[in-house]
Amino acid sequence: MRYLFFLFYCLPFALTAQYQQDSLIIKKMADEIMRNGKAYDLLRELTKGIGGRLAGSPQQQQAALWAKRNLEALGADKVYFQAVKTPNWKRGGQDYAAIVSIDGKAVIRPLKALALGNSLGSNGLKEAELIAFSSFEEMEKRQEEIKGKVVYFHSVFDPTKFQTFKAYAESGVFRRVGASKAAKYGAVAIMIHSLSSATDNEPHTGSMTYDEAYPKIPALALGPVDAQELFKLSKSSKIRVQLQTYGYFLADADENNVVAEIKGSEFSSEIITVGGHLDSWDVNEGAHDDGAGIVQTMEILRAMKAVKYQPKRTIRFVLFANEENGMRGGNEYANQAILNKEKHVYALESDEGGFTPRSIGISCSPEQWKKFELWSPLFKPYGGELTLGGTGADIAPLVKVNPGMVLSGLIPDSQRYFDLHHAKTDVFENVNKRELLWGAVNMAGIIYLMDHHGANP
Amino acid sequence: MRYLFFLFYCLPFALTAQYQQDSLIIKKMADEIMRNGKAYDLLRELTKGIGGRLAGSPQQQQAALWAKRNLEALGADKVYFQAVKTPNWKRGGQDYAAIVSIDGKAVIRPLKALALGNSLGSNGLKEAELIAFSSFEEMEKRQEEIKGKVVYFHSVFDPTKFQTFKAYAESGVFRRVGASKAAKYGAVAIMIHSLSSATDNEPHTGSMTYDEAYPKIPALALGPVDAQELFKLSKSSKIRVQLQTYGYFLADADENNVVAEIKGSEFSSEIITVGGHLDSWDVNEGAHDDGAGIVQTMEILRAMKAVKYQPKRTIRFVLFANEENGMRGGNEYANQAILNKEKHVYALESDEGGFTPRSIGISCSPEQWKKFELWSPLFKPYGGELTLGGTGADIAPLVKVNPGMVLSGLIPDSQRYFDLHHAKTDVFENVNKRELLWGAVNMAGIIYLMDHHGANP
Repeated sequence: MRYLFFLFYCLPFALTAQYQQDSLIIKKMADEIMRNGKAYDLLRELTKGIGGRLAGSPQQQQAALWAKRNLEALGADKVYFQAVKTPNWKRGGQDYAAIVSIDGKAVIRPLKALALGNSLGSNGLKEAELIAFSSFEEMEKRQEEIKGKVVYFHSVFDPTKFQTFKAYAESGVFRRVGASKAAKYGAVAIMIHSLSSATDNEPHTGSMTYDEAYPKIPALALGPVDAQELFKLSKSSKIRVQLQTYGYFLADADENNVVAEIKGSEFSSEIITVGGHLDSWDVNEGAHDDGAGIVQTMEILRAMKAVKYQPKRTIRFVLFANEENGMRGGNEYANQAILNKEKHVYALESDEGGFTPRSIGISCSPEQWKKFELWSPLFKPYGGELTLGGTGADIAPLVKVNPGMVLSGLIPDSQRYFDLHHAKTDVFENVNKRELLWGAVNMAGIIYLMDHHGANP
Repeated sequence: MRYLFFLFYCLPFALTAQYQQDSLIIKKMADEIMRNGKAYDLLRELTKGIGGRLAGSPQQQQAALWAKRNLEALGADKVYFQAVKTPNWKRGGQDYAAIVSIDGKAVIRPLKALALGNSLGSNGLKEAELIAFSSFEEMEKRQEEIKGKVVYFHSVFDPTKFQTFKAYAESGVFRRVGASKAAKYGAVAIMIHSLSSATDNEPHTGSMTYDEAYPKIPALALGPVDAQELFKLSKSSKIRVQLQTYGYFLADADENNVVAEIKGSEFSSEIITVGGHLDSWDVNEGAHDDGAGIVQTMEILRAMKAVKYQPKRTIRFVLFANEENGMRGGNEYANQAILNKEKHVYALESDEGGFTPRSIGISCSPEQWKKFELWSPLFKPYGGELTLGGTGADIAPLVKVNPGMVLSGLIPDSQRYFDLHHAKTDVFENVNKRELLWGAVNMAGIIYLMDHHGANP
């Protein structure tokens, strides 16, 4: 039966002239990227030369200029800014947290901590008793005990999940909405276990939002080691903690998506978008998140020019502003597409780190998938495959433009991603050149296939 | 057709009670390993507590005692030493290389260098002109020019190979036999580009052998950055280099394979071996090579005991002595198996680093493969699959014992492996806990399947 399957189904397709030609074109781009790739050098410039680039920072402005200059030099038909108003959150100072008493006995045990992005400052030093919960259900049950206290959420990852993004999605709810849920019952601040399975003690920041109905209390993430110890201690002892944060907003900033285009030769009105986000958190270099996606996007443009690939459809290389704490860049790109009545057929995002690719995840109709899955073996020599389901935060709003369009995301190996995601360890030194380039190879492959064969079934 | 394939072929198997049961047992072990795994802590002890452990070193002796003690504590039915005589090579000093003249002009440009393992010392400072080759063919053509010179082999990896072990196998020939090939034409020493695609400048040592027919000349590996520059310079200029190495052999050392056993309940005479090698190079902690394989092996024993898995067949957990520069441990294990008329049915090795698993590679007959490939989907939740072809250096000699037996190797992601393989960067800090544990999960899975269902078609 297995043999028959190969004979009737896979083999004929793999033997077609078309398959052979696709395979050769992808190999040509792959060899170009692996031999002459500039993504790693560009990443060094972005991370070491410019550094952290939170929306509203001078670094974000500088990164956009750097990107525009480089995309022009790489030979795009046109490169332009697309204006975006972004939030302008400032950390405002060096966040502080400590245990100051255990069962009534005064101590000073500093806790490694970072205020969550978009959280407001504590307005001076706060001290209160700590109460710890592992779930919202547990908090609901004990809501009477919360008033006047600091709530700690033990938002640890499920270690048995191979897909760390699933563990992140589950635990992430405490970071995203925990503050207002605790404020509802009178909490004066929240602390969470950093959204990370790292073995070190670096705290991980990340975006949160307040529910306008409740007081906007301070919110901090603790280093994993400190968080584990605090949680353990809270089971047996009465703990008092101190904290101070400084977060505030300035007026929205004027920023830009950076868009480069190669115009299609046959169906120039059909747009394929590939991109990542140019902003990062303030506490690191944003090397994996999402410097990797930025330089992979630039690398694909470079490689297409180097092998003289002329796309049939218009390919847009988009470096989005403000993914981290506002999603304004992706939303504005979609809004402009609606205003300009653009026809978007396919989009690909890289925003899960510059690690070895495992697949391109594709969201599409069952009919389209029947076509795409035949392409999957073309990715095998480069460590990848095509899998069903996948997108990215910045391209997701495009469904408002063309509801049936195909969205996709690069899915790299995710074991190390949350070790450094939003922590100060997300630096250039933790990116591997070959892993980064293989990501670009797989991305270039799917863009070629979607461009050349179209996304229709 | 695809639908039919699922319906008639995959689906029925995946729906069998047996498949469901296998899936549950593997999940139980996986959860145990990911939640309570001790492999990472054991690796810290081995690397930070004991360190580099080249055959003949006190550290290797200490590592064997450490391993025996831990395997006993983990609850093996018996743990014993298997005596092995190993080579006893000493580096003897701090290796030195430098460019000392360019086109007749005196300079001092130190080159980061490590003598190759098993190479003999230079007997004082040597200075000679350099001649560079990219291939043995090129050297053969210019053999007249070699006498009295230092030969440099530009043994760089092919960057377009996703499987870095293939690039290593190709370029590795210069390290393994280059010295005698050059000595044949009168070379006084060789230097090679380290067998690495790393972006740093650390030199990578590794095993070499001399052909007794020719003078045993010194042999060094250069840091990749220095090697690239030297090669480039050699194209345009006449270069003189200096070098000094100190390698020598003491009498063979008395060492041990460490063997732990859980006795089989049904077919106790059928032996399944799982293992890695306890020795490492002298210049690093041998964390990935092969501390990872050692602690994964120990972790599987721990997990089987924790979930109370009673194997049908006898499972041997073997920590081999002297893989790096002699292969004596693996050979002795096979020799003892012949002497004791043992029946070996399956062996699994982990010696490609503690990175995220991509597959278990299996060498077997086509009939056996038909059975094994049905198991492949069982590994998908843990990042793996089963692929055809794979073994390991220490278990390979077992084919002398039972020619038809099944051999296999854990195949982790290989992009970072040769960044640190045999270099001083192969340290504990470069191992990721989750990646290491997922390797153990996949290994435990295949051992369970081979034990429970047997390796016969």
